[in-house]
Amino acid sequence: MIKVGIVGGTGYTGVELIRLLLGHGGVELTAVTSRKEAGMPVAEMFPSLRGFVDLAFSDPESSDLNRCDLVFFATPNGIAMQQARSLLDAGVRVIDLAADFRISDVQEWEKWYGMSHASPELVAQAVYGLPEVNAEAIRSARLVANPGCYPTAVQLGFLPLIKAGVIELDSLIADCKSGVSGAGRKAEVHTLFPEAGDNFKAYGVSGHRHLPEIRQGLSRVAGQSVGLTFVPHLTPLIRGIHATLYARLKSDVDLQGLYEQHYKEAACVDVLPKGSHPETRSVRGANVCRMAVHRPQAGDTVVVLSVIDNLVKGAAGQAIQNMNLMFGLPESQGLRQVPLLP
Amino acid sequence: MIKVGIVGGTGYTGVELIRLLLGHGGVELTAVTSRKEAGMPVAEMFPSLRGFVDLAFSDPESSDLNRCDLVFFATPNGIAMQQARSLLDAGVRVIDLAADFRISDVQEWEKWYGMSHASPELVAQAVYGLPEVNAEAIRSARLVANPGCYPTAVQLGFLPLIKAGVIELDSLIADCKSGVSGAGRKAEVHTLFPEAGDNFKAYGVSGHRHLPEIRQGLSRVAGQSVGLTFVPHLTPLIRGIHATLYARLKSDVDLQGLYEQHYKEAACVDVLPKGSHPETRSVRGANVCRMAVHRPQAGDTVVVLSVIDNLVKGAAGQAIQNMNLMFGLPESQGLRQVPLLP
Amino acid sequence: MIKVGIVGGTGYTGVELIRLLLGHGGVELTAVTSRKEAGMPVAEMFPSLRGFVDLAFSDPESSDLNRCDLVFFATPNGIAMQQARSLLDAGVRVIDLAADFRISDVQEWEKWYGMSHASPELVAQAVYGLPEVNAEAIRSARLVANPGCYPTAVQLGFLPLIKAGVIELDSLIADCKSGVSGAGRKAEVHTLFPEAGDNFKAYGVSGHRHLPEIRQGLSRVAGQSVGLTFVPHLTPLIRGIHATLYARLKSDVDLQGLYEQHYKEAACVDVLPKGSHPETRSVRGANVCRMAVHRPQAGDTVVVLSVIDNLVKGAAGQAIQNMNLMFGLPESQGLRQVPLLP
Amino acid sequence: MIKVGIVGGTGYTGVELIRLLLGHGGVELTAVTSRKEAGMPVAEMFPSLRGFVDLAFSDPESSDLNRCDLVFFATPNGIAMQQARSLLDAGVRVIDLAADFRISDVQEWEKWYGMSHASPELVAQAVYGLPEVNAEAIRSARLVANPGCYPTAVQLGFLPLIKAGVIELDSLIADCKSGVSGAGRKAEVHTLFPEAGDNFKAYGVSGHRHLPEIRQGLSRVAGQSVGLTFVPHLTPLIRGIHATLYARLKSDVDLQGLYEQHYKEAACVDVLPKGSHPETRSVRGANVCRMAVHRPQAGDTVVVLSVIDNLVKGAAGQAIQNMNLMFGLPESQGLRQVPLLP
Repeated sequence: MIKVGIVGGTGYTGVELIRLLLGHGGVELTAVTSRKEAGMPVAEMFPSLRGFVDLAFSDPESSDLNRCDLVFFATPNGIAMQQARSLLDAGVRVIDLAADFRISDVQEWEKWYGMSHASPELVAQAVYGLPEVNAEAIRSARLVANPGCYPTAVQLGFLPLIKAGVIELDSLIADCKSGVSGAGRKAEVHTLFPEAGDNFKAYGVSGHRHLPEIRQGLSRVAGQSVGLTFVPHLTPLIRGIHATLYARLKSDVDLQGLYEQHYKEAACVDVLPKGSHPETRSVRGANVCRMAVHRPQAGDTVVVLSVIDNLVKGAAGQAIQNMNLMFGLPESQGLRQVPLLP
Repeated sequence: MIKVGIVGGTGYTGVELIRLLLGHGGVELTAVTSRKEAGMPVAEMFPSLRGFVDLAFSDPESSDLNRCDLVFFATPNGIAMQQARSLLDAGVRVIDLAADFRISDVQEWEKWYGMSHASPELVAQAVYGLPEVNAEAIRSARLVANPGCYPTAVQLGFLPLIKAGVIELDSLIADCKSGVSGAGRKAEVHTLFPEAGDNFKAYGVSGHRHLPEIRQGLSRVAGQSVGLTFVPHLTPLIRGIHATLYARLKSDVDLQGLYEQHYKEAACVDVLPKGSHPETRSVRGANVCRMAVHRPQAGDTVVVLSVIDNLVKGAAGQAIQNMNLMFGLPESQGLRQVPLLP
Repeated sequence: MIKVGIVGGTGYTGVELIRLLLGHGGVELTAVTSRKEAGMPVAEMFPSLRGFVDLAFSDPESSDLNRCDLVFFATPNGIAMQQARSLLDAGVRVIDLAADFRISDVQEWEKWYGMSHASPELVAQAVYGLPEVNAEAIRSARLVANPGCYPTAVQLGFLPLIKAGVIELDSLIADCKSGVSGAGRKAEVHTLFPEAGDNFKAYGVSGHRHLPEIRQGLSRVAGQSVGLTFVPHLTPLIRGIHATLYARLKSDVDLQGLYEQHYKEAACVDVLPKGSHPETRSVRGANVCRMAVHRPQAGDTVVVLSVIDNLVKGAAGQAIQNMNLMFGLPESQGLRQVPLLP
Repeated sequence: MIKVGIVGGTGYTGVELIRLLLGHGGVELTAVTSRKEAGMPVAEMFPSLRGFVDLAFSDPESSDLNRCDLVFFATPNGIAMQQARSLLDAGVRVIDLAADFRISDVQEWEKWYGMSHASPELVAQAVYGLPEVNAEAIRSARLVANPGCYPTAVQLGFLPLIKAGVIELDSLIADCKSGVSGAGRKAEVHTLFPEAGDNFKAYGVSGHRHLPEIRQGLSRVAGQSVGLTFVPHLTPLIRGIHATLYARLKSDVDLQGLYEQHYKEAACVDVLPKGSHPETRSVRGANVCRMAVHRPQAGDTVVVLSVIDNLVKGAAGQAIQNMNLMFGLPESQGLRQVPLLP
């Protein structure tokens, strides 16, 4: 059994990690920390876990995380970069679900995240944890930067096109819609039910932190810099991301065949039949990205529809998928949940 | 492996049965019928099941349901009463998730359901499948009438009080709120998103079909006729029932102790700590009834709060709980889903 | 034109007051204060008001509220009790939409609201602003305590029964469901979209601040102390309260006739035809309480269904109704909005 | 007073027309027809109208619509084309809120709408009722084709760019999100609350009926054929459309200035300050299109965000705006509703 700890267990990615790990079969959850809620039983804060979890939140200092085989950081940005070093030195592997190690260019990171990086030397060691791209590197990684939710949906959607070299790379468009849980479980006015309910809006059009992450990922695959317009929107869903991707074709290609071929071995990507429209609820609670590819009116513009559960394939599920790779387990162990529909 | 068939697989209880049976481990799903959708792959109608189910909907006539060990009817009212006889004669056990066998008094049933009963003789044989009351009879039943969603939440909430004989029985009140999936997956105006969304209303105050079912169940336990006012409401949830129950105490009693004691062996009922308020989302997707008991201002009125997922403990999950009892399996096999929160 | 000021304009009752006053025709809005947002244009915080309001939030100190004819307090509890005195002394009339002057028994108020009352002497002067009960006193009031949202729906629903003396007064039950805007526009975890969305729960069963207010109002009308169990619930609506009221009849009576007669002159109460079920959306945005009265199975229990928009008849609209009475205007001037449906 | 009739008053555009006309001040509503509901009081079907409307639905045959000055068709596609002729011959002006007269190319229309056109000769007479483009023609029109909801949001958003000639016209992208009321008030499974709630999906990517309408409108303004990719999505809103528009700039331009200048005289378009993100709720219930224009990272791609209430500026409100022009009234008479927020 892999001994696992979770730092920062009071947010949505924390409770989702616990839910998924409970059914994994190969892990022992030894600690869930929270500075603020230390002492409170986890199942008191999250009654959905009553009968499943006996742990109480523990103080990070007293939690003996050093004895874990793996520690997940389900913390706000800026925490893992301060605490990962000592865990890594103690031989503990680390998966950070926040953004601390996602951007290789530390200056770029500091610009978008508005803080100095506490461990720039770790950034170079970190492996970007998108298993559909980086499985080999993840298998031997000590420190994994789990991708953001938007970046997961967008990169998986564009990958086959970029790998195949069939689109113009200077003007990609990613029009993305996210459920409100993507904003986390923190008290803020703009995500209150009466603000976000029955309402739809774009935000961060002039620039969003996930833009450099997506650009970095796509550029690596392309072998050259890509031009991307990224517009995120908030939609009254609890969970779910829908990415609608647009690119200009520069050569004719069997798009459906290309996508099916590209993902035929992927454990956690599902290419829908031609003409489909994936729904966010078809992945609710599950670690899968479903996608469909269209070429409206047989024109030059290819449209990719890509959906994930932002808390699962966009966060906690993908982290477990990375853990499985790091520990030599089947990639989708513990990740075969049937989505909840309706 | 228990060979299982589902008659009527295109509704919400059908797809939920499939979801839960997929993780059960002791059943083989051999047929899912639909007269209307015969030939369509199940996972095409419900993309959440892609990768899990290879079956197509089959025509009921050609489905060879007679070779099943158990058949679930996830059909509208009035179907099982026509088709159960031949299955039972062939040695197949039957669980009806509709209302055909719930009311012992056939005349009463015909009054509320507005049709003649096709198999009154089967009504007497049927066992009312509320495992927390009828476990012994269910174990040996050939035909189980799976309870309605409201009746499950209401009966489980009142049971300890009635068994203990501590309340007046002539004026019980059940103020119940249901998510919209309780109305089923059929095209109707009043459950459209723009009608039921951002809206709250009572319905059926003058009389609802679940009233005689609840009265029958409570009266059996009480050993006398009970008086009940039942007011159902439609609330903009997808899943979930919240029953708020009121009764007048006639003797002083340790209510918290009473409830904990009553349900201490129950596999699928969770009594919350004193002072709690159960949330519907704390049971989303799970086969559990969570409840709390209150006595506001130490007065004569006891208030019980009882929540279930109407599609699980209120339908498909409870049906599987009954199946487990009928086939000598652990009562909660395949029913240990962690609720999805948020 | 009545010169009007609003203290505390950044919450939901504030913006709703502005929306309604814009169409009133008899008022001039001279100041909307906010200590925190002073200087920000009102229409920048609430883009729905673009093109209608040129005011910026002003600092309460510099707002010259003393020159108003009327000041509305749309503030948290505990503000009006500190500031009303000087306004009243300057001849300004005051309507407090918070709870500071609602409870005559100051000790009781201090117990439920957890603070010392800053102006107990004003409590005695204040008129409880439920126009359907107190119209005469309101007309000459200098200080009006605008009722709470739950108390409005509950009192209006019970009034005809109590006035007629046809129910037992020791065991009234008010099972109430509120939309989330009732919790106000403040950053809190439990009203976030992912917490309150697709979720239903009771809260405050052991005691809620609106309980003493309702009891006081009903007891005054009854001429004796009434016994009430009040259970509020949070439902995933933005706006709307649905009160389901239960009482035991002690004499036979034409309930429909009683209700129609009682409210036949009421400008802002609508008694629905026999057998109706009022929906919250039928009052969305409008200053009306719609209700229906039922006697299920012709038994002893009467059930009243009463709906309001918590921000209108439950707050801002009722405040304007009170203002109209205080200034000798038609009671429903500016309050004839057609509800928004769907 | 203008004598007005509504054909087909039981849908969402019908009830919204009534709501808005009630506050117009210059019209007399003489008939609301419904073949199916003839005889039922309008306010019985829509209790939001209780106290405002005494009319009952009338049979179209017996409604004497010929005596109206204006008849609105709030019917499904294919009705107005059969009935408009006789009204026009009787001197009645007609505004069709459905699609019958929107597409000039009758063959194109028949292809997309799947029926033969009953009055091709009327198509040529009809004026496309987008007042921000066609005000002059509308003023003298006898027959107005009221634009679709998506086409309104998209055309208003692109207009300033196309008029100014600053974008490439071969690859416009319109990524649009609609609330569910856009699908109308008809019983269908895919718009049930449990289907459309907490769910997000694209639809009609290979081709949607609003595509030729948008292309026609933009091409007329451009003076040449434009290339457009149009992807509609269904989002769990009741009301609201959010169009996110992408185009490639071919010359440098002050975008903010361009938009403010273009719409400075427009009564029903609101250009937000630079950097803004319009929310759908900021137009809820109101006849206004709010928009913002962005140029992310100062690149070649311009992003326009455009929001309307699909039932108001996208349907009933725009129809009244057209009526005002046709009858020489101020363009926004009766259309100054303050949006309902929250």
